[in-house]
Amino acid sequence: MGSSLRVLGVDPGLTRCGVGVVDVGADRRASLVHVGVIRSSPDLPAAERLHLIAQGLRDAVREHRPDVVAVERVFAQQNRSTVMGTAQASGIALLIAAEHGLRTATHTPSEVKAAITGYGSAEKLQVQTMVARVLRLDALPQPADAADALALALCHAWRGGSAGSAAVTDAALTPAQRAWRAAEKARR
Amino acid sequence: MGSSLRVLGVDPGLTRCGVGVVDVGADRRASLVHVGVIRSSPDLPAAERLHLIAQGLRDAVREHRPDVVAVERVFAQQNRSTVMGTAQASGIALLIAAEHGLRTATHTPSEVKAAITGYGSAEKLQVQTMVARVLRLDALPQPADAADALALALCHAWRGGSAGSAAVTDAALTPAQRAWRAAEKARR
Repeated sequence: MGSSLRVLGVDPGLTRCGVGVVDVGADRRASLVHVGVIRSSPDLPAAERLHLIAQGLRDAVREHRPDVVAVERVFAQQNRSTVMGTAQASGIALLIAAEHGLRTATHTPSEVKAAITGYGSAEKLQVQTMVARVLRLDALPQPADAADALALALCHAWRGGSAGSAAVTDAALTPAQRAWRAAEKARR
Repeated sequence: MGSSLRVLGVDPGLTRCGVGVVDVGADRRASLVHVGVIRSSPDLPAAERLHLIAQGLRDAVREHRPDVVAVERVFAQQNRSTVMGTAQASGIALLIAAEHGLRTATHTPSEVKAAITGYGSAEKLQVQTMVARVLRLDALPQPADAADALALALCHAWRGGSAGSAAVTDAALTPAQRAWRAAEKARR
């Protein structure tokens, strides 16, 4: 796949860190390369947990050799009890990309939802359904962290690697996304 | 210094990450080994900044071979605009400790203040003054991030490596700390 872009998407988390790799061609057609979750037990010290996540991400980078690593952007106002660990895990993902000389980008959850479904406030199930459809999967990607990582990777490829504004025009959408956006608008 | 503990303290931050190394004997006497700041420009991508911080911390670990790495604990309710970067930098510090098989601990700012001055709400200048006195420095440690990293390292050693409650009894204080606490109480 000479002109395709291979994106490693990371949905950061200490207990479950979602990892998804997709190839996306110039025609926006996408295919699944890898999907998984790196787990670390809450019983371990934070440093050990971050070490396990780093090892899992390094394995994924070395095995799948992505062109770019896309990481979900974490905000302070998200769920207080876990947000610091999520931020730490996102920092580890960015570090490992830099260590391998890979480009990085961060995207917000609403940017991901808009890119996948055409609608920035889409429900989780809508995003998962679109990810499964786009990647021609027989079932929804499981667990949710893995689906989010795939959505992030697709989002990055479709946004042309831009980490800028979340504005998505109809012209930039796939036919399926346009249909989804129209259905969403009709529902409101 | 056979029975002394060498602690690497890290005051995490993206723009300035404070690093301080102290040796603390069983008699609580402390001496300065190293103090410095790892800087990264806000103009660089986050991944590159975290990479620079990781390299600086790895250099410090390899050069000074600490027994333990103490990192300031970051809370979501701290300054919103930088807290995510601070959390990411703290995650990098914990990761590098784990990669080198070193013990880690986190301490809150008020735990550090209480351990150094005997008073959990001490002013920054009081902490810096005590750090300079304890380490027999001719001047206050500069910049502030470096002083904070030294305070964190001293806090960890004096608390006996415990990362538990911040309760400090007078009996656990040095004479200077007891004097400081008394002066603080008198001032209120």
